Amino acid sequence: MAAKKSRKSAALTKARMQEIQRIIGLNNMSSTPIDLRNYSRALEEKGQIAMRSGKTGVPPDLVAWPASTGQVSRLLRLANEQKISIIPYGGGSNLTGGTLVENGGIMLDLKRLDSIVSLDDKSLLVTVQAGMIGETLERELNFSGFTLGHFPSSIYCSTVGGWLATRSAGQLSTLYGKIEDMVVALEAVLADGTIVQLRPRPRAATGPDFAQLIIGSEGTLAVVTEATLRISMLPEKRIFASYLFRDLADGLDTIRLIMREGVRPAAVRLYDETESGILLRELDLEVSGNLLILTFEGLEEIADVEAGIAAAIAKKAKAKKMGEKPASYWWKHRYDVSYQQSRIMPNAGMVLDTVEVATIWSNLQNLYEKITEALKKEAIVTAHFSHAYPEGCSICFTAIARTDENKAAAKLDRIWKKALDVTVKAGGSISHHHGIGKLKAPWLKSELGNINGLLKKIKKGLDPNNILNPGKLGL
Amino acid sequence: MAAKKSRKSAALTKARMQEIQRIIGLNNMSSTPIDLRNYSRALEEKGQIAMRSGKTGVPPDLVAWPASTGQVSRLLRLANEQKISIIPYGGGSNLTGGTLVENGGIMLDLKRLDSIVSLDDKSLLVTVQAGMIGETLERELNFSGFTLGHFPSSIYCSTVGGWLATRSAGQLSTLYGKIEDMVVALEAVLADGTIVQLRPRPRAATGPDFAQLIIGSEGTLAVVTEATLRISMLPEKRIFASYLFRDLADGLDTIRLIMREGVRPAAVRLYDETESGILLRELDLEVSGNLLILTFEGLEEIADVEAGIAAAIAKKAKAKKMGEKPASYWWKHRYDVSYQQSRIMPNAGMVLDTVEVATIWSNLQNLYEKITEALKKEAIVTAHFSHAYPEGCSICFTAIARTDENKAAAKLDRIWKKALDVTVKAGGSISHHHGIGKLKAPWLKSELGNINGLLKKIKKGLDPNNILNPGKLGL
Repeated sequence: MAAKKSRKSAALTKARMQEIQRIIGLNNMSSTPIDLRNYSRALEEKGQIAMRSGKTGVPPDLVAWPASTGQVSRLLRLANEQKISIIPYGGGSNLTGGTLVENGGIMLDLKRLDSIVSLDDKSLLVTVQAGMIGETLERELNFSGFTLGHFPSSIYCSTVGGWLATRSAGQLSTLYGKIEDMVVALEAVLADGTIVQLRPRPRAATGPDFAQLIIGSEGTLAVVTEATLRISMLPEKRIFASYLFRDLADGLDTIRLIMREGVRPAAVRLYDETESGILLRELDLEVSGNLLILTFEGLEEIADVEAGIAAAIAKKAKAKKMGEKPASYWWKHRYDVSYQQSRIMPNAGMVLDTVEVATIWSNLQNLYEKITEALKKEAIVTAHFSHAYPEGCSICFTAIARTDENKAAAKLDRIWKKALDVTVKAGGSISHHHGIGKLKAPWLKSELGNINGLLKKIKKGLDPNNILNPGKLGL
Repeated sequence: MAAKKSRKSAALTKARMQEIQRIIGLNNMSSTPIDLRNYSRALEEKGQIAMRSGKTGVPPDLVAWPASTGQVSRLLRLANEQKISIIPYGGGSNLTGGTLVENGGIMLDLKRLDSIVSLDDKSLLVTVQAGMIGETLERELNFSGFTLGHFPSSIYCSTVGGWLATRSAGQLSTLYGKIEDMVVALEAVLADGTIVQLRPRPRAATGPDFAQLIIGSEGTLAVVTEATLRISMLPEKRIFASYLFRDLADGLDTIRLIMREGVRPAAVRLYDETESGILLRELDLEVSGNLLILTFEGLEEIADVEAGIAAAIAKKAKAKKMGEKPASYWWKHRYDVSYQQSRIMPNAGMVLDTVEVATIWSNLQNLYEKITEALKKEAIVTAHFSHAYPEGCSICFTAIARTDENKAAAKLDRIWKKALDVTVKAGGSISHHHGIGKLKAPWLKSELGNINGLLKKIKKGLDPNNILNPGKLGL
């Protein structure tokens, strides 16, 4: 595994600390024990289990809060010369350990880069700094009549930079796309401090798309400091619809046929029978089956037509109409999970994690069945299908298990191993939007095959000293 | 310029020829003078001018027609070991000299890789070999009720691999996207012969999107051998609509507002007054103004609603309704130009070329005016705006000039220099879909800025011997 190969980050001597201080100022750096401990964790379940017994992760040597791209550039140049590790940090909401410290170094918290740089209301583009919290950005856009259309459940505690680092998906990704679909231009700093800026353009044929190389690289190839993103008009109308299917397969077929007709709902969520049961009980509905939630939004005329076409397809599949309520109930509670972390975090003796994978339609039910089968001896498993596209869909499994507290970490490891072994073998993709981080790194190589060699060559070319977020993506 | 820096391709000795013969067979390679001469040219205007006086370009040392990815891999391994240049070749329809020979080597014509590998009608995906001609692929898909939705004017004489190499755009890109938007997976061969295969998945968060690094790299980073592309259902209905605007600005605003509402026409073409004049005369219509052609397609209900919304927006801008005819006339003749090259190629003493650029809406009219102004002393200039997106649009200029035949090449150089100098300066993108090749390479660095260094580092990492299509993209 990558950890063993990583070079030790160079020590932050007093002289180096003074250089850093000259770049960002004494008030914008910290090496107090409490800060170092706070930045030694992410929200991944394994870290939570460790925390329950008082253990913390490897701390950084320093937390730095730069205020500009220029400061990031100067910090990186220094770090590169001195071979000091740099861990770019946004909201710290990652579930795969993407900001965990491997070998000390500088935790580069970008949250002071928190402004909208410009809003081009003619080209429907917003240029925003990487450290801006998602919900703040969305609210600012709403004031001007726009929406980014990106609503990850972490929106209150994740940043634009974090979204880009991990290829984040919002809950309405079927209509608005994932974050990588919204990027028109980027500003990033390479390991040696070079600032690169892509020129905003609608589309181009001027060589490779370098934004798509940096997006998803989880801070291992560059530090994103700014992004120009597509925005949309606030929708004129929003429609909620819910359907119940006796068979999961009919629900999946309904989604697939809706997509096939060129209809684009905003939210698409099909819960399997177990997960539907939880929702239907919350709603006091005494029925069972597989619940499908759809929302449509945009111009009234278009949303109406689309909802009508979807209703006709669902009817053909003999779905029971469940009205607006299940969908609007979901809508109302859609951010509860990430925002109120403490409420859903399991107690000692319990393990709870979510495994999100993706595959094409022709493989979707197969992948669902294989993972469910693989996990059922380890945990209670529920799942929902969301983030639908014409070619396929994501599946999000929740695995919950009771265990002795001292066996919790091992239990979690087994759940992940079984789920991802079977995903790779069944031709699925091991992550749809949570990223790879440290957690999924051991399986990335199997998924990428020879592409993994290409990734390593690019890493070597761009970050020969391996200072950028070592240990992530298996690098 | 790049040419000067390129290393000489190693000579193809008799021993090396025999090795190549063992890989692909004697019948699938040629070094006859006529073949070498045929492969020394592309369709770019500068080469055409040279041809008029009997001059040909630099010939390759060998033309090779491999029949499988395995053969491509073995050829590349050999070429890399021996430092022999490899120029990947599809239909040879490129207008920027992307397949011109820099320093000899092997012309790798992929047209024997011409099959559909698989059609996944559930996931709406086709896996196709890189050498397949576009029109053949589209026809095969049509038989099964599908369309790729990719209709470049070169469709009869360009291949899937060529499209990917250059980030090709089809005439219906506003609805279906450019070729890079359709790619779900790729198979490619790296310079050292390594075969890399991306796994088809709807979306993923498993590191960078390597497909987007290879797409547009014009054969300089890898040889694409296979691609998995999104397909769509054949449209249930197609609607043609045409409008005439007194002011170009009103036409542009109409397109922008249509896109802003989330409406996606298939074709969008707004001709400036000069170019409209040519079309309107062909149609025997005695009016003047700026002609806008729109087509809508897909499910009948959706197409009808979208055409209605567009009509209302055009009406607000005081457009004159011109009915179906101008749009359906364009539709009927949409492939004439590239297919019947000889008809439109200028005679001696004339220069004709097209310059396609792109920029965001807030800069579009500015860019149009700057380029028109820059070219007007050199040529008669017409333009149309097509390939519209919510954030911007492409502009395609046609420049025609009379000149002494012996001054034709210099005249053409001046046209390109003036057009691209002003494009870079005005913040536009120097290519929307024709690519960079040799023609636009001198300006790529200005557009990319520091990204150019990143490109060079990646090239060095992936193709240290610079065997892949030397001299293109300025590499």
